[in-house]
Amino acid sequence: MMQLYVGNKNYSSWSMRPWVLMTQFELPFEEVMLRFDGFTPDSRFKQAISRLSPTARVPLLVDDGFAVWDTLAIAEYLADKFPERPLWPADRLQRARARSLCAEMHSGFGALRSACPMNIEAALPQIGAKVLAEQPAVGTDLARIVAMWTEALEASGGPYLFGGFSIADAYFAPICARLRTYALPVPAAIEAYIERQYTNPGMAAWVRDALAEKEFLDFEEPYRSSRD
Amino acid sequence: MMQLYVGNKNYSSWSMRPWVLMTQFELPFEEVMLRFDGFTPDSRFKQAISRLSPTARVPLLVDDGFAVWDTLAIAEYLADKFPERPLWPADRLQRARARSLCAEMHSGFGALRSACPMNIEAALPQIGAKVLAEQPAVGTDLARIVAMWTEALEASGGPYLFGGFSIADAYFAPICARLRTYALPVPAAIEAYIERQYTNPGMAAWVRDALAEKEFLDFEEPYRSSRD
Ligand SMILES: N[C@@H](CCC(=O)N[C@@H](CS)C(=O)NCC(=O)O)C(=O)O
Ligand SMILES: N[C@@H](CCC(=O)N[C@@H](CS)C(=O)NCC(=O)O)C(=O)O
Repeated sequence: MMQLYVGNKNYSSWSMRPWVLMTQFELPFEEVMLRFDGFTPDSRFKQAISRLSPTARVPLLVDDGFAVWDTLAIAEYLADKFPERPLWPADRLQRARARSLCAEMHSGFGALRSACPMNIEAALPQIGAKVLAEQPAVGTDLARIVAMWTEALEASGGPYLFGGFSIADAYFAPICARLRTYALPVPAAIEAYIERQYTNPGMAAWVRDALAEKEFLDFEEPYRSSRD
Repeated sequence: MMQLYVGNKNYSSWSMRPWVLMTQFELPFEEVMLRFDGFTPDSRFKQAISRLSPTARVPLLVDDGFAVWDTLAIAEYLADKFPERPLWPADRLQRARARSLCAEMHSGFGALRSACPMNIEAALPQIGAKVLAEQPAVGTDLARIVAMWTEALEASGGPYLFGGFSIADAYFAPICARLRTYALPVPAAIEAYIERQYTNPGMAAWVRDALAEKEFLDFEEPYRSSRD
């Protein structure tokens, strides 16, 4: 049985990706939750994860004792291990395009990610409007997301970016959550895609768990002082 | 014929990775050099690349009119297109480990990358010593690089990270160049690995071209006012 180590579901955007992917594809795994209590070396979280992974970060997949870290490597590992499942699009060019989008996500969108940290249970529309007005780089990131999704959905015909649900959708699930929390404005077709992501089994299960969490973590909350 | 769009060889660390990979594996490609003149929207570089790729960055691979952007996606595309060539390690677990290291590189090492921008023809040992003394995060990045390479080289027996030259080595070629330019201190076994990288055909050809370039680009040179 594979173990997937994740952080708090309300906050841990990287953990969300492989969890949603594995849940959506019904790959067998055991979730191991390492609750965040801080990211300083003496935090319980860092003490625990640094015994398991050299990067001391979640997500971490452990398969029969073998550690696979970093989200994109976990996704590729699963695609490699389950070649009969369409984790990537079956078409070689579509697969390449999906990988371009995921690699772009893996290293990019820094402005959006830092101004709008994932916070599933929060509703922060005013913050979203303020951030968009004050930080042009967030608008640039948003425009690129909208353009990329629009093009992929139009080319494939949907309902997901490359037709059926794939690693690319799992990769952008946390972005859907950010767009919704901060109520960032998007065209109707993109709003419909976000809604489809929210109602698919993988993301719906993650969101349900996130909403059931009770923790309020100061260091993940630049904009609130408590859960409302 | 595939076209690989790259930036200046002295400076463009991301361009270097697929170029070294394709050269080392003797994959057929035509190099298209888009010289950097700045990264503002009105620069010639940005004007040219934004017509070809939605991210407006190099490297970009174009195969029969189909654009593949982002370094990691280009590497995976080539591995997919040439399954008979060992671009990734043949063993499934070794391949997973190689992907963890590349994904870690793709999104990490920010302190080292920003304090020590790639500059192949420069020799900046004093800057390296100063940066290491003043920025602990650079030391943390360096320690992780050394630990990761040491472990991979010991596990595989070398001469490259996973035995034969693979995508992982191409991914770390620009790091080798940074370590050398800034003379960052590493153990003897790591120094020997860097030397092997410098003398392998792929990297040697890139370095030769970099040294032959004449441009001095202010915006890539935080530490110098001219080529010496
Ligand atoms: N590139 C990594 C990023 C992982 C990451 O940053 N995870 C966060 C939680 S969402 C973490 O563990 N942070 C701990 C820290 O920064 O020390 C991946 O894709 O897995
Ligand atoms: N994640 C991208 C990064 C590419 C990148 O940042 N390339 C630099 C040159 S080394 C670039 O084109 N910069 C132009 C810009 O920042 O506008 C990749 O791996 O391909």
